[in-house]
Amino acid sequence: MKIKSVEFKRVFYRYKEPFTISLGTHETQENVEVCITLEDGTRGYGEASALFVISGETPQMLEKMEKTVQEMIAGMSVERYELIFEQTQKLKATPAIKAAVECAVIDAFCKRHGLRQYEFFGGAKNKIETDITIGITTLERTVEKAKKYYSEGFRILKIKVGKNLKEDVEKILKVNEIGKDLSFIVDANQGYSPKEAVELAQILYREKINVVVFEQPVKKDDILGLKYVRWNSPYPVAADESVFTMYDALRLIKEEAIDMINIKLMKSGISDALAIVKLAKAAGIQLMIGCMGESSLGISASIHFAAGTGAFAYHDLDSHLSLVEETFRGDFKQQGPLITLEET
Amino acid sequence: MKIKSVEFKRVFYRYKEPFTISLGTHETQENVEVCITLEDGTRGYGEASALFVISGETPQMLEKMEKTVQEMIAGMSVERYELIFEQTQKLKATPAIKAAVECAVIDAFCKRHGLRQYEFFGGAKNKIETDITIGITTLERTVEKAKKYYSEGFRILKIKVGKNLKEDVEKILKVNEIGKDLSFIVDANQGYSPKEAVELAQILYREKINVVVFEQPVKKDDILGLKYVRWNSPYPVAADESVFTMYDALRLIKEEAIDMINIKLMKSGISDALAIVKLAKAAGIQLMIGCMGESSLGISASIHFAAGTGAFAYHDLDSHLSLVEETFRGDFKQQGPLITLEET
Repeated sequence: MKIKSVEFKRVFYRYKEPFTISLGTHETQENVEVCITLEDGTRGYGEASALFVISGETPQMLEKMEKTVQEMIAGMSVERYELIFEQTQKLKATPAIKAAVECAVIDAFCKRHGLRQYEFFGGAKNKIETDITIGITTLERTVEKAKKYYSEGFRILKIKVGKNLKEDVEKILKVNEIGKDLSFIVDANQGYSPKEAVELAQILYREKINVVVFEQPVKKDDILGLKYVRWNSPYPVAADESVFTMYDALRLIKEEAIDMINIKLMKSGISDALAIVKLAKAAGIQLMIGCMGESSLGISASIHFAAGTGAFAYHDLDSHLSLVEETFRGDFKQQGPLITLEET
Repeated sequence: MKIKSVEFKRVFYRYKEPFTISLGTHETQENVEVCITLEDGTRGYGEASALFVISGETPQMLEKMEKTVQEMIAGMSVERYELIFEQTQKLKATPAIKAAVECAVIDAFCKRHGLRQYEFFGGAKNKIETDITIGITTLERTVEKAKKYYSEGFRILKIKVGKNLKEDVEKILKVNEIGKDLSFIVDANQGYSPKEAVELAQILYREKINVVVFEQPVKKDDILGLKYVRWNSPYPVAADESVFTMYDALRLIKEEAIDMINIKLMKSGISDALAIVKLAKAAGIQLMIGCMGESSLGISASIHFAAGTGAFAYHDLDSHLSLVEETFRGDFKQQGPLITLEET
């Protein structure tokens, strides 16, 4: 069934509280929703969400891609999605738009063929557990939030670090006292030097902290630095900002620079994300899945992708929880960290 | 929809004339058909076809896997195909059965959801051009067959070599006189030493023969030999017997040992074939698709896979043409080298 029209819509969200990572602070999140209408009236939805400090995309520029995308894919058939993906591959400067368009296409494809999206991706699971993220804030506020999340059932906490090594250690040790069953994803967002990163890992290891992922410790283009941390850290080292495309992923695999990749649809779209899933499997490296600032609409796509492929050891799909949303638009159910997709 | 039953059936074909490659001669082909029936009566079909000299599989052992496969996947839902593929991954000694079962599952999935298989795979194309293969035979018979195929419209000839370098050169030069628009896939099936392989390539290059693929020149486990040929041959060097799994593919990519991979569903199943497609794309290496001794039933799956993914520079999907078949059971149309899948 052919695509009749493509519409973009800019949407505005406020963070429940300012969200700080080593690269900057966000109080608001502006996303672009993509709606694809097929000739039979079927609609597919996607959401483009970017953080300027990560990808250099702004909502203004994302919105301006509407006409380009219309000209690119209008009239194409969703059953020929590989041809559509050849087109979206050209959206190099706007991976979030590439992702939103690909998500909308697969959404429409699935609706048209009576498939749930997670079934299209292989139907490996219909339940996943997500972590929850604590941005960089004071020690007091960090502990307070961690306690709240712990009481809500979250057992995997993602802690943002990378601005001050001493304070980072202090926070993690303090939070760790909350419960013996806590695991940590420690995310530096490129904030450390390679030696600092190894120092942090060694300290936490001596203190017996259960770090399950040490994410993007060093600058995204410092592949040798990443490799240094990987080979000198007792914890699995994951690339996030270092990997947008399948080509990035293969380079790091060839360099043996990583233990894990954090796939985000907003960086890779469905097309490259699928390729990275296969690459990681062949290379025997682990995967986690993350998000940018998607609302419940956009996060649904990542949930389906993660559940369907069943490829991820850790799920960091919590952005919707940090935004003020008037209406919940996900097609999943959530209780604390547990996310469920209804079975057909 | 759940799988109710799985049935295997052994089928017997005769080659139109004895088919010789450097590894041996075949006069008959025994395959195993796999039929999966879903609870709603939907049926999916696959065909397992192996050459003992390639994979060590015999039809007798393939047939004996029926009960194992039944116990493995009966009751599973085809919409959870990734879970089924986790099971089929265990069929390590019988890749042809793995392939046939995966093909039957995807066939049933597609029928159930009103999808043509090539659409499931992305719908990149619905037309492909196949080469045609000339086994090892006398110079006279080789030329005679080549003339016949040329008159039928075939412009890409796959020539089996690897038993006698001097005769191989002689044949190719003679066949090349038939038409200026001929291209050659030269397939040694592991028959040469690395130095012989380079010698052949150099001679053909000096004679300006248009070789588009130099396939599996050396022993399958001689990765350094393959690499030697790759870096010293003017023609693209492809791995065939060297690559069954995605792990094989990644190893050769890491070693920079190849220009191309020949994917066959009978070696890799749909699961590993899909992974190899992504690996090759990320690595920027080319792909061709080949076959074992499939009838029109089994070759259909490879045609859908190739057309849908659109990933292949060359198609060597001609095994059904060399078998005596009472009934044509493909769901494609063929005119000489041109194969067409009906559009929805």
